[in-house]
Amino acid sequence: MWRTEVSNQTPGTPRSTREWQAADSAHFLHPFTDHQALAAKGARVITRGEGIYVWDSEGHRILDAMSGLWCVNVGYGQPALEDAALRQMRTLPFYNAFFQTTTPPAVMLAERLAGIAPGFKHVFFSSSGSEANDTNIRLVRRYWDLMGQPQRQVIISRRNAYHGSTLAAASLGGMPAMHAQGGLPIPGIVHIEQPHDWAHREGAARGLTRDDFGRLAASWLEDKILELGSETVAAFIAEPVQGAGGVIVPADTYWPEVQRICERHGVLLISDEVICGFGRTGQWWGSQTFGSRPDLMTFAKGITSGYVPLGGVMVGERVAQVLIERGGEFEHGYTYSGHPVACAVALANLDLIEQLGLVQRVREDTGPWLARQLATLQDHPIVGGVQSCGLMAAVQLSREPRTGAAFDPAHAIGMVCRRHCFDHGLVMRAVGDRMIVAPPLVITREQIDEMMGLVRQALDRTWEEARASGWV
Amino acid sequence: MWRTEVSNQTPGTPRSTREWQAADSAHFLHPFTDHQALAAKGARVITRGEGIYVWDSEGHRILDAMSGLWCVNVGYGQPALEDAALRQMRTLPFYNAFFQTTTPPAVMLAERLAGIAPGFKHVFFSSSGSEANDTNIRLVRRYWDLMGQPQRQVIISRRNAYHGSTLAAASLGGMPAMHAQGGLPIPGIVHIEQPHDWAHREGAARGLTRDDFGRLAASWLEDKILELGSETVAAFIAEPVQGAGGVIVPADTYWPEVQRICERHGVLLISDEVICGFGRTGQWWGSQTFGSRPDLMTFAKGITSGYVPLGGVMVGERVAQVLIERGGEFEHGYTYSGHPVACAVALANLDLIEQLGLVQRVREDTGPWLARQLATLQDHPIVGGVQSCGLMAAVQLSREPRTGAAFDPAHAIGMVCRRHCFDHGLVMRAVGDRMIVAPPLVITREQIDEMMGLVRQALDRTWEEARASGWV
Repeated sequence: MWRTEVSNQTPGTPRSTREWQAADSAHFLHPFTDHQALAAKGARVITRGEGIYVWDSEGHRILDAMSGLWCVNVGYGQPALEDAALRQMRTLPFYNAFFQTTTPPAVMLAERLAGIAPGFKHVFFSSSGSEANDTNIRLVRRYWDLMGQPQRQVIISRRNAYHGSTLAAASLGGMPAMHAQGGLPIPGIVHIEQPHDWAHREGAARGLTRDDFGRLAASWLEDKILELGSETVAAFIAEPVQGAGGVIVPADTYWPEVQRICERHGVLLISDEVICGFGRTGQWWGSQTFGSRPDLMTFAKGITSGYVPLGGVMVGERVAQVLIERGGEFEHGYTYSGHPVACAVALANLDLIEQLGLVQRVREDTGPWLARQLATLQDHPIVGGVQSCGLMAAVQLSREPRTGAAFDPAHAIGMVCRRHCFDHGLVMRAVGDRMIVAPPLVITREQIDEMMGLVRQALDRTWEEARASGWV
Repeated sequence: MWRTEVSNQTPGTPRSTREWQAADSAHFLHPFTDHQALAAKGARVITRGEGIYVWDSEGHRILDAMSGLWCVNVGYGQPALEDAALRQMRTLPFYNAFFQTTTPPAVMLAERLAGIAPGFKHVFFSSSGSEANDTNIRLVRRYWDLMGQPQRQVIISRRNAYHGSTLAAASLGGMPAMHAQGGLPIPGIVHIEQPHDWAHREGAARGLTRDDFGRLAASWLEDKILELGSETVAAFIAEPVQGAGGVIVPADTYWPEVQRICERHGVLLISDEVICGFGRTGQWWGSQTFGSRPDLMTFAKGITSGYVPLGGVMVGERVAQVLIERGGEFEHGYTYSGHPVACAVALANLDLIEQLGLVQRVREDTGPWLARQLATLQDHPIVGGVQSCGLMAAVQLSREPRTGAAFDPAHAIGMVCRRHCFDHGLVMRAVGDRMIVAPPLVITREQIDEMMGLVRQALDRTWEEARASGWV
């Protein structure tokens, strides 16, 4: 039984939480962090995980309703993924795919992905969603060069979108705080409004049905294409459900209309499936759930359940055949494009998703169950509304649900709620006033009930604090 | 003995080389590849590795003189790295570091890196060198914003440089073929000439000593700063030894003069250590070998010996303190910034480098031994010159070594030589007419002799083919 002979402990001398925090502050520059604030408080040290739970260095068990960061879809501690990593590391821990060489895991994963992505035959690998979206920009511009339309350079994206953190990926994104640092955005990227009926409830969405608003929001894409001239537009990129933007689930009318608009103007459609892919929405791809037929799909996160970094792009035949037949060498790629260990772990992860029937389970069992439980929050005194799609959901906080009035931003109500979540042993993410859950896809009905119980407690404590502070 | 109970074979049904090649061509879009050419020939399928050797699907043993892609520094099949990955995967395969949380491996690796990088205390993690150089651009621009000099936006790089393949990283790079695809470069990046005395031998370097040429090449940086106005220049980025550009080893005078110029004009210095870091040049960092004191250092590849994707930036105190004390939230980061499995493997890799004394061995034993063996090629009829630094080296091919005359580019002599290398069981890289080696740092003197024997055979065959073809 070799699995028991390697210890489960962090190597080195045991440290106290304070010692971890001191070393953390002294040396580790975290992503998206105010380090003075972090140093004052001290980081929470996550030391181990099992299933849908993680534990901190103080021994607290925490229900991880965010799957790490939208990625640990099969949960923590899956031996099949560990074994696949070990087996491949012992066989061939790395080889590159640059100079007319290849490795079996990369070939098998590319073949396997083609099998689960209808209409797609080719894959370009990276190590992250950022790198994959960066690749998309180079791919679509190269495609139009080869098609004799080099003026098709512009990529249209959406405000409040998240597509990664490289200069180009963050430029695709529509996050004002990111654009304010580092000389962003790069040229050739423009943004339209997102299909967020709650945010537009006092404007464009007033008096419209949800379906009508979906069609209206899609028309903003056509307006922009016409404004720019379709002969200058290379592609439109969007997540099926805006994830980091706050789980903005579009009306059912949105994506079919976007599809028609892209086809009408010859514009390539890129579906960023970094969060929605691999079962999150109840299908392998979010675009299947929403009925679009993208030319390119970005993936990362769920492809390995986060166990090893891996990302990439599914390249549809419209683009792939032009690149292959007319393109000569595509001057792009990464050292770790097709990393054998990452690909081996991805294969084991996809096997496990199939063996456990997770995609179907999300679609038919846990997704609807989560939606039903969320609906019971509708009458909560600070819940303005709920939205979900498969196993991703948002709870919109409001100081007056009847009118949908927002809390004063100065009170940062989302952060207050997040603190109460942590205090109750729950990881939930705050995006402004929207509280987000996206639990591992292995979560059971019983565990959803447990999670929703913790959510309700955190909302109750948040409401009590808001009342005590005079914010409601 | 748990190490023997997991099979060393690629999972699934065994396939023939032709079957692997067919599936590869049908589905896997390789980095930097002409896929029509690849399909016509069929990829070489690398199936396993041990020490400095890899094997292909036909059972051929190949001496990997490129360390995968400048990364497998401790060689293939190191149990310590495999064990570290397995242990961390079982404990906590992933957790993020975004929301005031941290994990022990990320903290320990940041602490450890600070210990081996004199003057550096802070680390920002990514999953690749591309992402790390992208981070550098956002970091230096943010720094100057916070310093009240927001007009310092321009980054100076060098022609023929390689800094990655995202839009921003490829823009930093100075590769014309990459700039020709995908709408590159982005604004705010300018390039100066590289310190390559061989390339300049009929121009700037004529009649100069190597040291004088080094000073001249450094002066091109100051010329550019003065041309742009130093008040607009954020940083200068360069590899200590240009790696993918062809192992361009600068004169000893180059880097000290670059250092003085950066200081004189307040320009930040970024040392891209993706290839040179972790012992390749005989010190932990290439900047130590060449006597510069960078403000930021990019790393990737050798940090994990390529077993798991990992990259990052060492952030010097000049920049880190401004970011921390004045910056608030730095709006940048990656899902896998501080990935616990990647960091655990890096720690094991650094331990192994220390236990085996690889840095010292390169400096005092194998590096000088390689240089001595290379020198014996000087009299070869198609060798115009050799250069090496630690365990990276270039052999410059020339059709007439006496005058240094180049082969007709139409004959692609480097590719001819690379084919003969493969036929002799040797991976060597061709960069134009420069043949490159950068073997794993675990290579012994005896293995260097074996490698150089193969190099000589490949050069002999190349010469014979060149004579038979009338190219010399």
